[in-house]
This record gives sequence, structure tokens and C-alpha cells, in this order.
Amino acid sequence: MPKVIDHAQRRREIVWALWSVIHERGIDGVTFQAVATAGGISVGRIQHYFESKEELIRSGAEHMVAEAEKHYRRNETSSDPQAELVALLTQPLPTNEAGRMGVSVWYAYLAKAASDPWIRSFLEESTRGTVGETRRLLEEAGVPPESAPAQALRLVAVSNGVTQSLLVGLTDPDEGVALVTAEVDRAIG
Amino acid sequence: MPKVIDHAQRRREIVWALWSVIHERGIDGVTFQAVATAGGISVGRIQHYFESKEELIRSGAEHMVAEAEKHYRRNETSSDPQAELVALLTQPLPTNEAGRMGVSVWYAYLAKAASDPWIRSFLEESTRGTVGETRRLLEEAGVPPESAPAQALRLVAVSNGVTQSLLVGLTDPDEGVALVTAEVDRAIG
Repeated sequence: MPKVIDHAQRRREIVWALWSVIHERGIDGVTFQAVATAGGISVGRIQHYFESKEELIRSGAEHMVAEAEKHYRRNETSSDPQAELVALLTQPLPTNEAGRMGVSVWYAYLAKAASDPWIRSFLEESTRGTVGETRRLLEEAGVPPESAPAQALRLVAVSNGVTQSLLVGLTDPDEGVALVTAEVDRAIG
Repeated sequence: MPKVIDHAQRRREIVWALWSVIHERGIDGVTFQAVATAGGISVGRIQHYFESKEELIRSGAEHMVAEAEKHYRRNETSSDPQAELVALLTQPLPTNEAGRMGVSVWYAYLAKAASDPWIRSFLEESTRGTVGETRRLLEEAGVPPESAPAQALRLVAVSNGVTQSLLVGLTDPDEGVALVTAEVDRAIG
């Protein structure tokens, strides 16, 4: 019987190797060879799944957002919009070494946003998605539709700012989570 | 008469060239040759002022903080702590292409914080300085000393989060400044 290849799994493995290269050398340090070495796979296999370095780098950003969404959905155990808001906005906060590595890769993409239009518009769209979901949950929790958009923008800024404080070690994870939670509570009133 | 060399100016020119290399290729793309080409100067001159690539990269971070502080001091025309707070916390917000480039270089350093202990501790110290100054101004504006530290942490997170929103084009500068100003007003009450 022919061996069944899990293509999604192979793509994921390549993307994980890409992230470790970005973490070590930045986005501009990405080459097929560096990703192959980091992943212990052949350059040929990467080329089979990704036509170009650019496609691989873009795919890395898309996977990162998809993983965050999956993580958020998995934690979404309640139908309480306030608890869902806290889960959504504390999800990016790095609470361990792996989380800090993920955030550093995300910042590498942010750093490229100023000079790479695709990355900028991808990050804009992704952040806009988070703001939209925040707004929806705020309204579900009873925040009036006229004030929900500004509150959503503010809460996403707080979440991103606290993530940055954790990245540089200014605050610890518990304090960060408490800060975001307090802001959600205050927004809902 | 011998020519008087302005060493501080020469160092600044090298650092500006460094920033443009970081903007284009990331921190891992920095070499003396790349900085020399970007600045239209010789590798020898760079080596005269900086012993190693690491020293140059670290100096680039220090210059960035020093410039921000100078900019903040220059704008500090009032003795009104509330206005000073707004100036301090809106200062990093990119309002034009040059500002966006500066922020992208800052994000390149942030991205390296997870893997480079010197950069991480430098960014921690620098952010802690901003939080300390915010706290001092909050107390000067009448915020009780027991709530000032938490408020300062929150306001700096908002400033950093709004900076990120501007970087990806989620909000425009006016909206970003309004958001930070409203948070300052609310903190002071």
C-alpha cells in the first residue's frame, strides 16, 4: 500500500522550522537552506510545498494567526462574553519561553511592516479581525453600539501594549493578565 | 590649522546609516560593510568609532532612546503635568513616514529581545524609565501614590499598543493621539 502523506502536517513542520529561523536570524535571514537545516528536512521538500521564500514567509504569518485563533477557540469554553473577551485579549500574552519566542517572531513581522506592503496589510487585516471580534463581544456584553468601536480599539491596544511589557520583562504574566482583565471589566462596567 | 572633527556628529551619521540597514534588512543583516555603503563612508571610519558590530548595534538602541528623550524635552514647554504626560506618551506615535521607519527599527530591537539578553535588559530599563517618568507626572497631577504605579503601567501599555496600531495602519495618527490623551485624562480624573 502506498504511504499516506499528511501534507498539512508537513507544511506545519516547515513553518515551525521557519519560525525558529526568524527567531534566530530575523525575516531577512530566511533562506530555504536555513529552514531546511533548522527543520532537519531537504530543501527539495520545502520547494515542493512553497514556490518561493516570500510565499513561505507569508505562510508563516498566516499560520501564526491561524494557531492563535485555534487556541482562542479551544479555550472558549463559556458563553459568557466577558470571559470570552478576557480569553481573546490575554491569549497573545507570553507566559512562558515558547510564548515569548512566538511573540518575538510576531515582532519580526511587525518590524517588516514598514517596508513590506504585503506584511503590513496582512497585519492590519489580522488586527482588524481582533478589533471586530472584541467589538462584537462588547456589544454582546451590553456595551452600547456607539461606544463599542472606540472601546474595542482601546482594549486591543492595551492587550498589545501589555504583550510588549511582558516581552521586555517589565511586568510578570500574572500582573499582565490582571491588567487586561481589569480593563475588560471596566469597559463592560 | 588642523581640521576640527565633530566626533559626536560622525557617530550620529554612522548610527543613522545603521538604522537604515536595520530598517531594510533587520538587525541580523547588519555588517560594517552594509552600514558603510548605506552611509557613504568607509568601513575604516566605522571601525574607528565602534569596536564591533555588537557595540554598534547597542549604540543604535541607546541613540534611539536618547533622541526620543531629547524630542520629549524639547516639546516640554509647559509645567502642566497633564500636558507633559500627553507629550511623553504620544511622542513614540509615528505620524509620518520617518516616524514609521523609526518605529520599525524599534520593533526590530523588540524582536531580538527574546534571544539577546543585552537588548532585552536595555529595553526593559528604557521602558521602566518611561513608566517611572509617567508615575512621577501622575503623582504631580494629583493621582494618589498608591494607585500611580498601576496607572503608569497601564498608560505606557496604551501608548505602546497605539503605536503598534499606527504601525500596521489600523488607526490614523489623530485617532491614536486622541486615544492616548483620553486615557491620560481619565487617569488623572
